[in-house]
Amino acid sequence: MKLIRFGLPGEEKPGVVTDNGMFDVSAFGEDFGERFFETDGLARLQSWWAANGAGCPSVPAGTRLGSCVQRPSKIICIGLNYADHAKETGAAIPTEPIVFFKSTSSLVGPNDNLVIPRNSVKTDWEVELAVVIGKKASYVDESEAMDYVAGYALHNDYSEREFQLERNGQWVKGKSSDTFAPLGPWMVTKDEISDVNNLRLWLTVNGKTMQDGNTSNLIFKLPFIVSYLSQFMTLLPGDVISTGTPAGVGLGFNPQIYLKAGDVIELGIDGLGTSKQTAEAWKK
Amino acid sequence: MKLIRFGLPGEEKPGVVTDNGMFDVSAFGEDFGERFFETDGLARLQSWWAANGAGCPSVPAGTRLGSCVQRPSKIICIGLNYADHAKETGAAIPTEPIVFFKSTSSLVGPNDNLVIPRNSVKTDWEVELAVVIGKKASYVDESEAMDYVAGYALHNDYSEREFQLERNGQWVKGKSSDTFAPLGPWMVTKDEISDVNNLRLWLTVNGKTMQDGNTSNLIFKLPFIVSYLSQFMTLLPGDVISTGTPAGVGLGFNPQIYLKAGDVIELGIDGLGTSKQTAEAWKK
Repeated sequence: MKLIRFGLPGEEKPGVVTDNGMFDVSAFGEDFGERFFETDGLARLQSWWAANGAGCPSVPAGTRLGSCVQRPSKIICIGLNYADHAKETGAAIPTEPIVFFKSTSSLVGPNDNLVIPRNSVKTDWEVELAVVIGKKASYVDESEAMDYVAGYALHNDYSEREFQLERNGQWVKGKSSDTFAPLGPWMVTKDEISDVNNLRLWLTVNGKTMQDGNTSNLIFKLPFIVSYLSQFMTLLPGDVISTGTPAGVGLGFNPQIYLKAGDVIELGIDGLGTSKQTAEAWKK
Repeated sequence: MKLIRFGLPGEEKPGVVTDNGMFDVSAFGEDFGERFFETDGLARLQSWWAANGAGCPSVPAGTRLGSCVQRPSKIICIGLNYADHAKETGAAIPTEPIVFFKSTSSLVGPNDNLVIPRNSVKTDWEVELAVVIGKKASYVDESEAMDYVAGYALHNDYSEREFQLERNGQWVKGKSSDTFAPLGPWMVTKDEISDVNNLRLWLTVNGKTMQDGNTSNLIFKLPFIVSYLSQFMTLLPGDVISTGTPAGVGLGFNPQIYLKAGDVIELGIDGLGTSKQTAEAWKK
């Protein structure tokens, strides 16, 4: 199943994507957030859809999409989780996951504009596979960790490198600006992805390929990440974990390349769809 | 005005504290969360209380208190914001604020037990002045920053030093365990605190004074912190900012001192009340 949220910012309605297009499931009566996931919403929606899907209105192509899940309690990111990316940034390969948060206020729709923050000169991109947590997870064993995963989504973990690395720490400072977390187009349930450890992920800027990786190169795999995080904090239903980015970010080039107003960023992951952001300058 | 939330975990009701005790304001019909603050809830509650307070049931002494505000979108912390604490940890005095997050799942009531995480050997305390944001703040000037503050609360920013400092970064890893953010007893509105830059804050372990500081020694003051953070992320109504801890944490002693099951931690800030946690071992 593929879940979307569509409509104006802050007024998004829930929807479902099938081979026949996008459909409005507002009549199901729930948004795709913590309560939905914690009350077995995916199974309930599936049953409801089987009975009522034929009567659901279609969503016109071109309708704005919001983040594919409602604002979660947290967005957790794994740093330097592809060896080629660690290398390009001059960092050592981590011996255990580097963990940081993004402010959930950075969440936006997959095709919303990227706003380059005020005083930013180093806004950068990071295509990432995001995981959506399906049920509360605390001290979960690696062997059972995937039971706690609801599905996956495409994420661009925008990063302001000066804020992140040159403003006296910690990284959250460069990860949290508004529009820095376009999530979607959809959340796909995990049953629809046959091998999450073998998905191509790519990103272009103005049509030029900058990142072209594969989740097979993740240093720390999903079950390990979910289990690991759950030793340090309780993961709540609907929480988002972004698993890291492969090589090809602007920081890794010599000279470095950063985004400017008018740049068009497109990205995708096999089975998770594509998204497209246009950069614009911050204005009051 | 002093706001409390009381009752069983997850079922807290809103209340108000006066010189005559604690009162149940459930009849007001709102919890103290993002929506309450963003819709001018403090002013509305004040009017409501003036008209209806006399009829509100009292809350028996000894009733469990929850966090004084509902789970916020984020808990933001400022690191090393007292010179004496920076010195005791061997860190340099920051030239601009160090910013990190705590998982909001760590939030608990002011007198709930502290659960020492599984495999923890370095659980530490940090008495802190917390600020509650009253309205959405983005790119706010320092001169106007205090307009965005609703009030203050007492916070113990529990920290697992091994998780924080020896597990390959970032600090969030050692700040986010369940029960690591007891907040309260109450949120006091800012009008009741005549000088927030001159409040004594203290903490004892088993009756022995470990921390005894004053907010007059904050390196970065509240207006600067609120303004500064709002350059990097949007602060939402109800968000909590914890402003840093003075000297006297377990990490700063030689040899270091960490919490063990049975330890009793008491803390307080002038005008913000006191809280008390008993440490217990994690169990399945």
